[in-house]
Amino acid sequence: MPVSVSVPDEIIIRRRRRNGTANLPDMDGYPFSCPIQVRWRDLDAFGHVNNATFASYLEMARTEAWTSLFGGRDALAIPFFVKRLEIDYRRPIDLDDEVRVWLRVGETRGASFTFEYTVEAGGEVAAEAVTRLACVDKTTGKPVPIDPDVRATLETLQPS
Amino acid sequence: MPVSVSVPDEIIIRRRRRNGTANLPDMDGYPFSCPIQVRWRDLDAFGHVNNATFASYLEMARTEAWTSLFGGRDALAIPFFVKRLEIDYRRPIDLDDEVRVWLRVGETRGASFTFEYTVEAGGEVAAEAVTRLACVDKTTGKPVPIDPDVRATLETLQPS
Amino acid sequence: MPVSVSVPDEIIIRRRRRNGTANLPDMDGYPFSCPIQVRWRDLDAFGHVNNATFASYLEMARTEAWTSLFGGRDALAIPFFVKRLEIDYRRPIDLDDEVRVWLRVGETRGASFTFEYTVEAGGEVAAEAVTRLACVDKTTGKPVPIDPDVRATLETLQPS
Amino acid sequence: MPVSVSVPDEIIIRRRRRNGTANLPDMDGYPFSCPIQVRWRDLDAFGHVNNATFASYLEMARTEAWTSLFGGRDALAIPFFVKRLEIDYRRPIDLDDEVRVWLRVGETRGASFTFEYTVEAGGEVAAEAVTRLACVDKTTGKPVPIDPDVRATLETLQPS
Repeated sequence: MPVSVSVPDEIIIRRRRRNGTANLPDMDGYPFSCPIQVRWRDLDAFGHVNNATFASYLEMARTEAWTSLFGGRDALAIPFFVKRLEIDYRRPIDLDDEVRVWLRVGETRGASFTFEYTVEAGGEVAAEAVTRLACVDKTTGKPVPIDPDVRATLETLQPS
Repeated sequence: MPVSVSVPDEIIIRRRRRNGTANLPDMDGYPFSCPIQVRWRDLDAFGHVNNATFASYLEMARTEAWTSLFGGRDALAIPFFVKRLEIDYRRPIDLDDEVRVWLRVGETRGASFTFEYTVEAGGEVAAEAVTRLACVDKTTGKPVPIDPDVRATLETLQPS
Repeated sequence: MPVSVSVPDEIIIRRRRRNGTANLPDMDGYPFSCPIQVRWRDLDAFGHVNNATFASYLEMARTEAWTSLFGGRDALAIPFFVKRLEIDYRRPIDLDDEVRVWLRVGETRGASFTFEYTVEAGGEVAAEAVTRLACVDKTTGKPVPIDPDVRATLETLQPS
Repeated sequence: MPVSVSVPDEIIIRRRRRNGTANLPDMDGYPFSCPIQVRWRDLDAFGHVNNATFASYLEMARTEAWTSLFGGRDALAIPFFVKRLEIDYRRPIDLDDEVRVWLRVGETRGASFTFEYTVEAGGEVAAEAVTRLACVDKTTGKPVPIDPDVRATLETLQPS
């Protein structure tokens, strides 16, 4: 059963699911998801969403999750930064695809933790991704252990 | 009365309207509107949505209107390009603002026409803008008169 | 004669000027210019530099001019914001175009002033543009008169 | 000894190297590099270059290398797409950092090959990255073996 997390109100997007026989696997392991509004500007000269823009989609979901977990924009004041990014691209995203980023917390350890993502487009898996975020001291900029309360809150987004 | 145009299904965004005493004027003159999902990546180092990103918001609304009017993505094959852009910035847009672009067609003449926009953020006017689009021949790249059917369809988005 | 302004060291870009019979007018009226490195990501699905990206090119030139005038990044602390943007698009910019933004200060008045730009691409005028910037008080966010020293420095970028 | 590859003419950027005691390792293993012009728009609300923008920097270098290897823009017609992206972020990039992306070809196998990158900023390593690109058939969109001539050309960018 998904952990009870305040999922943001839906952004219902009029875009078409490309087909009715989607290959999307069971998403039960992801306690959080965020719909993404694809923009014309996201496309590159190949007519698909640019590979770097996928990273902005992940960031969008991450920011929403963060705000949802830590209550408002001040939450962004918690000093984390992206330490590592991995994206496996499975299929292109088109302008008219309905897109949603599924997110969960992977491991939390010492001074860092991971978010794991599945990017859904047109009812299919468009990408799988992982970001590792590191906690830093605001003054020194050095890595520091994650605050225990922050960690406990993050762990509510781990798969049950 | 707004002209009957197929407005896309809503993208309901959880973001807060900043205040209850919005200064937003009567939007009856705008037959079309498009909610915009603000992304973390839209912000610049001042912490507000970057001035150039407003132009992408206009483009988002324009693309949605175009698709709505001309039926699907193939509509994008109609060769128009942006000839002139004007934006008057009224107030900054923040990450947690609920944003909507209101759009109408202004004048249509010879080989070009205008879209007029009001960008709403947090229940207030964040910007007013105009884009002039020119019709070109696909082969020669030269300006050509707007096709009469295209013009008639565009005019359904003029204020009544 | 151009006012003596410290123009940044060149960014010499390998891109081709498209033709040898450029239509570029005399640029003597512009005391400052900034070469722009076109990126693949700047293109949209039409294969040309996206219309909103032109605004980022202007901003690039503006930031460089600002830094050049006011000495380093702290100069960015001077609280101005973009109040109005106008761009007239003359021809598309391609990935392999050599691009340069020419900039001058137009009028300075009360609490605002203008930058005027010509965007050169492939030896031709790709766009002409104006931005009006307003000076604000950092604490109140209200418009305030431009500091006289700032104004005098800006005026060194007016055409002689 | 670096393989003799036509490195594009330099883009010399006026930005400062932050310190004289750079930790940048020996870059002899990278036969290609591309200077990057950092833009104001690349920064996010934290005041550093956004994590997704690093992927655009890689793409910039990749596009330049590709054009350099395969002779002009038509080279872009060779149908490859990004299959996997990995970035390890080592330090933030600031607006005034001199940035350069170093690039080499890693392994080439069946229908895919890798580019390996080091992103230099202010004389230090700002990121290390790998992208795997897959070759596809234009008509079917299915992976196909890399053309032997393309492979041989790519291998000139492998470390000697």
